[in-house]
Amino acid sequence: MILTVTLNTALDITYRVRALRPHASHRVSEVTERPGGKGLNVARVLAALGHEVTVTGFTGGATGRVVREQLSALPGVVDALVPVTGATRRTIAVVDEATGDTTQLNEPGPTVTPAEWSAFQEAYEDLLASASAVALCGSLPPGVPVGAYAGLVRAAKAAGVPVLLDTSGEALRRGVAARPDLIKPNADELAELTGSHEPLRATQDARRRGARAVVASLGTEGLLAATPEGRWRATPPTRLHGNPTGAGDSAVAGLLSGLVERLPWPDRLARAAALSAASVLAPVAGEFDRGAYEELLGRVAVTGEVTAA
Amino acid sequence: MILTVTLNTALDITYRVRALRPHASHRVSEVTERPGGKGLNVARVLAALGHEVTVTGFTGGATGRVVREQLSALPGVVDALVPVTGATRRTIAVVDEATGDTTQLNEPGPTVTPAEWSAFQEAYEDLLASASAVALCGSLPPGVPVGAYAGLVRAAKAAGVPVLLDTSGEALRRGVAARPDLIKPNADELAELTGSHEPLRATQDARRRGARAVVASLGTEGLLAATPEGRWRATPPTRLHGNPTGAGDSAVAGLLSGLVERLPWPDRLARAAALSAASVLAPVAGEFDRGAYEELLGRVAVTGEVTAA
Repeated sequence: MILTVTLNTALDITYRVRALRPHASHRVSEVTERPGGKGLNVARVLAALGHEVTVTGFTGGATGRVVREQLSALPGVVDALVPVTGATRRTIAVVDEATGDTTQLNEPGPTVTPAEWSAFQEAYEDLLASASAVALCGSLPPGVPVGAYAGLVRAAKAAGVPVLLDTSGEALRRGVAARPDLIKPNADELAELTGSHEPLRATQDARRRGARAVVASLGTEGLLAATPEGRWRATPPTRLHGNPTGAGDSAVAGLLSGLVERLPWPDRLARAAALSAASVLAPVAGEFDRGAYEELLGRVAVTGEVTAA
Repeated sequence: MILTVTLNTALDITYRVRALRPHASHRVSEVTERPGGKGLNVARVLAALGHEVTVTGFTGGATGRVVREQLSALPGVVDALVPVTGATRRTIAVVDEATGDTTQLNEPGPTVTPAEWSAFQEAYEDLLASASAVALCGSLPPGVPVGAYAGLVRAAKAAGVPVLLDTSGEALRRGVAARPDLIKPNADELAELTGSHEPLRATQDARRRGARAVVASLGTEGLLAATPEGRWRATPPTRLHGNPTGAGDSAVAGLLSGLVERLPWPDRLARAAALSAASVLAPVAGEFDRGAYEELLGRVAVTGEVTAA
């Protein structure tokens, strides 16, 4: 199975309001709730691609119960979340019907105790034993040490499990130093990591910092990959309009599934770029438009060069 | 015991953010959760005044479980909420730390089925048997007929239980026609009911429409009462600055407690006005500053005239 880790799981709530005005009172016309956090989105896409996926991370409180109830209804996804005393955070996306724009309110997440963090690390090492690959995704909840991902990367490597890291800021900087097999930063995360706003230079620099391979997601410009086997750029044929939330998570799912299926890099990148573009057409993160994905897959342009042996 | 009815209970969530900007992403720095809905706030104030209170209405889902857990920790409040399949609504107050202003997002509430509405009516009639007074508070959730309060008013009168109605719009209009003992509209609700923005005229008009007594809450100007026994105005000594949410619910608690203690109208009004003002000093609805309440109680000016016998 593929293992995805979401230390800061969420209950993603979407509200529709006629028009959001600060300091006014609003009647919410529509409420939707779903399990959230990058690793859960990645798991949903992997399961839709036919992979067996196990999700771990933390969950707690009334919000955590809702997340688990909803996860239990997803075929192909096994819940191995570790309980904590604090409550799983909510994220609230307020969609303004007048403009279509979204205002986001993100709770910080539960404070994880040292004992809970230790319990997670044990559970994680047990799960690695049957994992073909692992993705470490998203922000750290309060209480989890900032070097957490570095430790989880090292444990995966010690277990011989390929590890992808998708986070940001100091957690990414420290995690990269532990030499993950792959990172998937977006343009901002890559610039923050390397200090360079020039993607070609920055992906190379991120490799020097410890990442074996770097696939940067550059929005509508597609993906830019720097790997030991070569460098490539994967560009979808058209700019799609829709909801970009979760496009990066779909790219992670594409890269991971390509890795465990041992696809050549150009095929992995084409799949990741097509999934990412097709998820822009889906209303929520963790889903993609299957028709668009299949149609786009053959039309993603992958250009690049193989490294001389 | 005193019975309070909250058909559309809520989980009131307060978020603090640095500054709310539409279409931006916000990190919530502080999250608080508490049971909400007007009747639950009234119950908390009544319990703090030493009365035995039973709360009923609807509750459901994960949010309803949190409401019930928190209610069970309140001394003096008995939970007689009726379960529904839908989920208790959330209300989200986003406090902008830069300005102190609040932006409110209110979910609509669960859709109540006809069978659930029937179950509630039976439970309500059973509870009336041991009630000394009943307050019907707040908005109606989807599925409950707009004439609901009229039926609940008639049932209370048939049981010989004094009934206070605190709602708005068409639910208030229909409820008033069923001749409740007391209504407590604010200025806007009173104007919507009567078409008059002149409070003296409007309170008299609301009596003609069916309310035996009318106590209008006029914000910092205090309370205006039109009753069969006379007319009064109760004015707090100073304008207090703070959070006006829940001030009307505290006034309802003051009026109800004065009713069951058979206080003369001027004393009931002084209590209601002092509680209302003292709740402005408390950070959340359903609470009041006890020191301020006791100090204000003797300083509320009650002026008016008794109706000639």
